[in-house]
Amino acid sequence: MKSPGGFSLIKNSSGSEARAGELKTQHGVVPTPVFLPVASQGTVKTLIPGEISEIGMVMVLANMYHLYLRPGIPVIEKMGGLHRFMGWDGAILTDSGGYQVFSLARLRQVNDKGVVFRSHIDGSEHLITPELAVQYQESLGADVIMVLDECAPHDAAFEKVKEAMHRTHNWAERCLKAQKRSEQALFAIVQGGIFPELRRQSAEYLASLDFPGYAVGGLSIGEPKKTMLSVLEETAALLPQNKPRYLMGVGSPEDIVEGVSRGVDIFDSALPTRVARNGALFTRLGRVNIKNADYSRTEQPVDPDCDCYTCRTFSAAYLHHLFNARELLAYRLATVHNLTFISRLMREIRENILEGVFDSFKEEFLSNYRPTDEKVRLDQKQKWLKKRG
Amino acid sequence: MKSPGGFSLIKNSSGSEARAGELKTQHGVVPTPVFLPVASQGTVKTLIPGEISEIGMVMVLANMYHLYLRPGIPVIEKMGGLHRFMGWDGAILTDSGGYQVFSLARLRQVNDKGVVFRSHIDGSEHLITPELAVQYQESLGADVIMVLDECAPHDAAFEKVKEAMHRTHNWAERCLKAQKRSEQALFAIVQGGIFPELRRQSAEYLASLDFPGYAVGGLSIGEPKKTMLSVLEETAALLPQNKPRYLMGVGSPEDIVEGVSRGVDIFDSALPTRVARNGALFTRLGRVNIKNADYSRTEQPVDPDCDCYTCRTFSAAYLHHLFNARELLAYRLATVHNLTFISRLMREIRENILEGVFDSFKEEFLSNYRPTDEKVRLDQKQKWLKKRG
Repeated sequence: MKSPGGFSLIKNSSGSEARAGELKTQHGVVPTPVFLPVASQGTVKTLIPGEISEIGMVMVLANMYHLYLRPGIPVIEKMGGLHRFMGWDGAILTDSGGYQVFSLARLRQVNDKGVVFRSHIDGSEHLITPELAVQYQESLGADVIMVLDECAPHDAAFEKVKEAMHRTHNWAERCLKAQKRSEQALFAIVQGGIFPELRRQSAEYLASLDFPGYAVGGLSIGEPKKTMLSVLEETAALLPQNKPRYLMGVGSPEDIVEGVSRGVDIFDSALPTRVARNGALFTRLGRVNIKNADYSRTEQPVDPDCDCYTCRTFSAAYLHHLFNARELLAYRLATVHNLTFISRLMREIRENILEGVFDSFKEEFLSNYRPTDEKVRLDQKQKWLKKRG
Repeated sequence: MKSPGGFSLIKNSSGSEARAGELKTQHGVVPTPVFLPVASQGTVKTLIPGEISEIGMVMVLANMYHLYLRPGIPVIEKMGGLHRFMGWDGAILTDSGGYQVFSLARLRQVNDKGVVFRSHIDGSEHLITPELAVQYQESLGADVIMVLDECAPHDAAFEKVKEAMHRTHNWAERCLKAQKRSEQALFAIVQGGIFPELRRQSAEYLASLDFPGYAVGGLSIGEPKKTMLSVLEETAALLPQNKPRYLMGVGSPEDIVEGVSRGVDIFDSALPTRVARNGALFTRLGRVNIKNADYSRTEQPVDPDCDCYTCRTFSAAYLHHLFNARELLAYRLATVHNLTFISRLMREIRENILEGVFDSFKEEFLSNYRPTDEKVRLDQKQKWLKKRG
């Protein structure tokens, strides 16, 4: 195993699997549990790097699939790598784009070599192999990079999921062999869909390859939340204790709290920023929609207890007005609010783990926070996935 | 005449009509010549108030017509006025919305009382009178407010322009009588289209009413640039020396320089921010378009001589990528650049006037700066006006 710094476990929770740790990277120490805001195309939408730091975020997620297609890996390499290109000197994790190839790209053909796909932007044809996925991510220069994986749809049959899992294992080995830059941590991705037996096989096999970190992929892609949590629980239990665990694509406040209690160290999701641009803002009681006419004359900020720039500076009525008038500043102010909410949540989670009282924190948080209705949530997700495609 | 602080002339240029002064407001002293970025709906698009200050802007323009329709004057009044509503503690000038009523609203009917129009947003019917225009602007609480005027189209016939001018004069008197808040400076608006005789009548008549400031309206609305400059020159010469002069809706770098040399103290325009969002960025040599493929691999900033946040932080290639990917951050970074360019230009203009060398500055600036082709400019303007309607 190549050693790119590494992960230190600082404290295990007694009443749950929650844990606090530190992930050492070339761009600073990342306290865990951590949430990574999404910067797929090399920007956390609407924000400048200084704001991302001010909000308390120390690591962001970028996406190799998107950056490969636009502006292209050679451009970013010429600009001195992704950190310099996007002006961000904190830590970066790049996803290999496996998920995007299987969800976003068109006409993909998977074979032993890799996957041929057509760009969702201009229809051009491309080949990605495990070796190229590593090579491209090495060129981008993120602190943590991901293996190329195949993510089967949430409703795929057992045999299909099994095939995708085996391919993911094979590709993970090839990625490990292809890695040349030792300062980047290459994480494996556990697949296996909603089938406990496959998840067990996948976790055990990849654990035997001794990666510096493990992601749980193929969750939160349309399956019921209950299924997501039970599969996560079973899978996380099979992963090495001393390695960081990354739950890909999960980022609602309630899912983060549940994920932490099942032993997850790293989260990423476009959800907090995406719903912000739609006017849905996090409070300790759940999401509120600022576009609601109730806010048209509200002098208080959206969340009077929030210390984010938006709530410190503006009334809910002003934010309501900006959304109503479709002013670009609306999306920015809402993004600042939601990411500050998540940043504060992660800090509180960690403090509560360190103080040995995470269980009561979790109970209190979940008893106050009203999650979005399951049906509404799945409908929104489907609508969004469709729109992207 | 009510005296809301006032205007001090500090220096007259010898070789031109250029002048440096200070406009005292309840929200600080505004050094002139000054450019006001446009915040029609209570926001300089994409920017937070702190950034507007950092860029060096001390006064912004908001629009009564827009704010009256959305969110409504009573909402802003309830929030403690426009300054507090938009979180801006610098100076504000509100336009009465006369121009918008005549260019943006539908089915307007002008009568002696005022103007009845339908909202461009939802078609609802509204009446604005000179008295209401003042009352609403008093509720908003800007530092400088404008009379209600009638702006005839640039190609209107003499009789039509004359009628609009007389109505504007009548309304100006009524606005003056309606004013209750003495700490706001109420500016008159000179009309008269492209007809020197009407401009002379308008300037002389309004000057006799002793307003604290005078705007030149009805220019830069589609007429050739040469016409605009000659009408401006003749009109400005007829305005009182000791009162501030405001050229409404003019804001291209070359027009600002030309306007200053004809004795203008105050400018506003959506142009710098609007073209920024379209990828057109100011440099000392003229506008460049960052969407041009030439920039796809440019490591240098857009303008290596520029000290704005965007140029200090990012390569032209990154900005090109953001525009290409339609990322919201693109519009923000481009806005910062263009407003910084204008802010620096105003500072340089003022310094050169104070040092008595404005003429050579003007000559040098205009010899370097290649303006946008006249035909392209008018086409763009028409396209924009059409899109708004």
